[in-house]
Amino acid sequence: MKDLFSEIEAGLKAIEYPESPANLYDPIAYILSLGGKRLRPYLLMLVAEGYGAKRELAINPALAIEIFHNFTLVHDDIMDNAPLRRGNETVHEKWDENVAILSGDTMMVQAYQHVIKNVPAEMLHEVLEVFNTTSIKVCEGQQLDMDFEELDKVSVDSYIHMIRYKTAELLGGAMRIGAILGEASEEQKDSVYQFAIEVGLAFQLMDDLLDVYADQAKFGKQVGGDIIENKKTYLYLQLEKKISQEDNLAWDKLKVETDNNKKVEGVKALYNKYGVDVDTKSLIQAYYTKGLKTLEGLSVTDSYKSELKKFADQLQSREN
Amino acid sequence: MKDLFSEIEAGLKAIEYPESPANLYDPIAYILSLGGKRLRPYLLMLVAEGYGAKRELAINPALAIEIFHNFTLVHDDIMDNAPLRRGNETVHEKWDENVAILSGDTMMVQAYQHVIKNVPAEMLHEVLEVFNTTSIKVCEGQQLDMDFEELDKVSVDSYIHMIRYKTAELLGGAMRIGAILGEASEEQKDSVYQFAIEVGLAFQLMDDLLDVYADQAKFGKQVGGDIIENKKTYLYLQLEKKISQEDNLAWDKLKVETDNNKKVEGVKALYNKYGVDVDTKSLIQAYYTKGLKTLEGLSVTDSYKSELKKFADQLQSREN
Repeated sequence: MKDLFSEIEAGLKAIEYPESPANLYDPIAYILSLGGKRLRPYLLMLVAEGYGAKRELAINPALAIEIFHNFTLVHDDIMDNAPLRRGNETVHEKWDENVAILSGDTMMVQAYQHVIKNVPAEMLHEVLEVFNTTSIKVCEGQQLDMDFEELDKVSVDSYIHMIRYKTAELLGGAMRIGAILGEASEEQKDSVYQFAIEVGLAFQLMDDLLDVYADQAKFGKQVGGDIIENKKTYLYLQLEKKISQEDNLAWDKLKVETDNNKKVEGVKALYNKYGVDVDTKSLIQAYYTKGLKTLEGLSVTDSYKSELKKFADQLQSREN
Repeated sequence: MKDLFSEIEAGLKAIEYPESPANLYDPIAYILSLGGKRLRPYLLMLVAEGYGAKRELAINPALAIEIFHNFTLVHDDIMDNAPLRRGNETVHEKWDENVAILSGDTMMVQAYQHVIKNVPAEMLHEVLEVFNTTSIKVCEGQQLDMDFEELDKVSVDSYIHMIRYKTAELLGGAMRIGAILGEASEEQKDSVYQFAIEVGLAFQLMDDLLDVYADQAKFGKQVGGDIIENKKTYLYLQLEKKISQEDNLAWDKLKVETDNNKKVEGVKALYNKYGVDVDTKSLIQAYYTKGLKTLEGLSVTDSYKSELKKFADQLQSREN
C-alpha cells in the first residue's frame, strides 16, 4: 500500500495552476511542494479501499483533505507569526501576509473542487456534510488555541477538546469520508471515525511529550520550545493541577526566567517530580488502547487492519 | 417581490451560531448585521423564481452568496487596511487581524453549508461547480487588484478583466445558480449569466465615475477618494491613454500634490478636458444596452423581466 503515497504525491504534482495571477498560485504550488507525511490523504484512501472503493474514487477527496490541511497551515502560520514551516520560509514570509490570506482562501475553494470530483451525486450531501462540519471544527480548534493563550485558567477537559478539534477531527473527517466512499454501514463509519479521533488524540499528546523529552539529535524542532513559550500543553495543565503551593512559586519564577536552558531544565524537573510525563504517557496509552479496540471492530480485511494498526503503532515509537 | 428582501434578512437573522468560541462567531453575526443591499441573494432568488423554482429551494443558496460576499469583505478589509465598513468598524479593527482571518474562513465554510442545503442531489455538481469557479475568480480579481497597485502600466483590458472577476462574476454566479435551481435550459443559463456580467461591469464602472462626480451630500464616501489615492480606475487609465506629454507632466505633479482639494480639482479638470467622463459614461451605456438586449432573450415572465430591468436601471440613476 506504499504506492498510495506515491499516488498522492503524483496527484498533488499534477494539479495545474493558471499562470496568472502568479502571486495567487505560486504560493499554493510552493506550500504543497514542501512535503509532509501526507498521512491524512493516505488514511482516507486506505479506509476507502478497505471498504471496497475504487482508487479513482478516493484520490480526489484525499487530495482535498491534504489541500485543506495545507490551507490551514498557511493561515495558522500568519496567526502564529511563524517564520518557518518544514524548514522553509512560510508563505507570509516568502511573499507577504495579504498573499498568504488570499492564496489560503483559494486553496480552500480548491479543496472543495477536489472533494466532489468524480464523487457520485447520491454521495455528495453526505461527503460535503462531513467535510463542512470537519472544517468548522478545525477553525473552532484554532480559535480556542489562540483564546487559551490569553486565559489564566484552562481546564484539562477544554484542552483535550481543543486538540481534538484542531487536530484529531480532520483525521476523523478524512477517514469517515473514506468509509462513505467505500459505502460502509453507518455503524462502521462511526467506528472508523472513532478510531481516528482516539489515535489522533494520542498523536497530539505525543507531540506535547516529545516537545519536552525528545532526543534533540532526532527532533526537528527545538526541544523545550513549549516550555520556553509557557505554552499550556497537557503537561503544563497537569502540573498546574498537582503542584504544591511552594513549588508553584518556583514555577512562577521559571515562567519569566530568561535563561532558556535553565528554564527548560527547571520546568522539566518539576514535570518529573510530579510525574506529569507518566500521566501523559498513560493518557496516550489509554487512547491508543481504545483505538486498537475500536480497530478490531472494523469490517475491513486483515491486511488493511494491519496497515491501520501500523499507523497507530508509529505514534508509540515516533521520535519526532 | 419586495418580500424577497425581507425573507433574505430573516434568513440571515435566523442563522444560529454556537456560543463558543465567541471570537469566532460574534464577528460573523456582526458583519452580517451591518446591512448592505443584499442584491446578490435577491437576484439569485428572483431568477430562480422566474424560472419556476420554489422559494424554499432558492433561499439557502441565496444566503450562501451573501455569506460568501461578506466573507470576501472581511478578508479584503484586512488586505486593504480599511478601518470602516458600512460606517462601522471593520472586523479586524473591532477584534483583531487573526480573528478576522479565522472568522472569514469559517464564513466560507458556512457559505458552502448553505449553498447545498435542500438542493437535490442531481443538481449539486452543477451548483457547486459554478460556486467554486466563481469563488476562485473572485480571489483572482482581488489578487489582480492588489497587483495593479504595484504596477506602472495597467491596460484598460486588464482593468476590465479585474473588475469583472472581482465584482461582476459573483453576480453572474449568483444568477446562474438561480437559473440552475429553476431548471432553465443551458442557453438560458448562459444568457442570465451574460446579463449579470454586463450589468455588473456597468455597475462597477459607475462606481469609478461616481467617485469623481457624485454629489457629496448624497455620496456615502469622500468624493475624489480614488483620485487622492492615485487609484488606477477606468478614468485614470483612459486619461493615461489620451493625455498629451505636456499635460502628463502636470498630472505627475498632481499625483504627489498634498493639498487634497487642489489635487481632486486638478485631476478632475484633466478628466473633463480629455472627456474621460464621457468615455466612461459611453462604456457604461454600452454594457447597459447589451444587458437590456440580453434580458429580452430571457424566457421569464414579464413581471420578472421588469424586476430585472429595474435593477439594471437603478445603476443608471444611482447617486451613491
